[in-house]
Amino acid sequence: MTDVPGLLADHAHCELKAAQSALSMVGRFGDEAPDLVEPLSKLAREETAHFRQVCEHLEARSAGIGRPAKDDYVGALRKAARQDGEAPAMLDRLLVSALIEARSCERFQVLAEGVPDAELADFYRGLMAAEARHFSLFRGLAEKHFGAEARRRLDRLAEREAEIAHMLPLGPTVHG
Amino acid sequence: MTDVPGLLADHAHCELKAAQSALSMVGRFGDEAPDLVEPLSKLAREETAHFRQVCEHLEARSAGIGRPAKDDYVGALRKAARQDGEAPAMLDRLLVSALIEARSCERFQVLAEGVPDAELADFYRGLMAAEARHFSLFRGLAEKHFGAEARRRLDRLAEREAEIAHMLPLGPTVHG
Repeated sequence: MTDVPGLLADHAHCELKAAQSALSMVGRFGDEAPDLVEPLSKLAREETAHFRQVCEHLEARSAGIGRPAKDDYVGALRKAARQDGEAPAMLDRLLVSALIEARSCERFQVLAEGVPDAELADFYRGLMAAEARHFSLFRGLAEKHFGAEARRRLDRLAEREAEIAHMLPLGPTVHG
Repeated sequence: MTDVPGLLADHAHCELKAAQSALSMVGRFGDEAPDLVEPLSKLAREETAHFRQVCEHLEARSAGIGRPAKDDYVGALRKAARQDGEAPAMLDRLLVSALIEARSCERFQVLAEGVPDAELADFYRGLMAAEARHFSLFRGLAEKHFGAEARRRLDRLAEREAEIAHMLPLGPTVHG
């Protein structure tokens, strides 16, 4: 893994998209589900703060955020959810977000172990904890609103997600 | 002006959209203009904080954020910019944002004077100052990157904006 700035630039756009996605869910679902508003707007602020931290790591390497890369993983996961039946839009948005957080958590673990920079490894370890918390938040909101349907749908989408992650190798080699 | 919760709900979505718009500009233009990244991501966090404050005012009235209303003013302004020549996309995004902030500042002044609730009036007065600052930020970034072209384009878009604002009456009566 040699292209640390490239990895950081990709990461920066992921944090930015996560913040935008959370805000868009607040706007779209906040009327029918007022209990989403506070935790997801808080999450958006946290993702924006993470974005700023990634930018600082980029600046320390005299690098910028670059152009946003197409995210095949997220695109494929959203498409699989759409093609895969009649779950309510809010349920799928929550569960797709949960799965992205879980996969990011796993990815940061790999990065924390593989990155040749102690400070960056610490940063990734901190993010792992945040992503695990976000996974629980999204899953918890899905279960609160949709009960057993949420658990069944999460199992189903997790299978699709595993297929997608298998086809599109994740981890540092994707970006580096 | 009787429908204060309706006004607040409309306002909540405006803050949310402003935060999303700032993040989207960071993602889209942060590569060619790295000096946008820090101030616009900071602005997004500030707009999200304003959103939360509006939500608290809604909660105090046992009201929710409602569904997002179509924003004819912003839609017309963006369309006018697109139809109106060949300015760079980044310049128009910065200037349209500047004009929305200036108009919001004016709107909050009207609201601060007209709203029958002293606490809310104070809130609007605080936002007026923020919107004025945001106007200067967007205009300043536009002038830094585009110099005299930015000033000419701002004059032109401000004319269009005034026509649109004249056709679509703004102020408390829109929402109330």
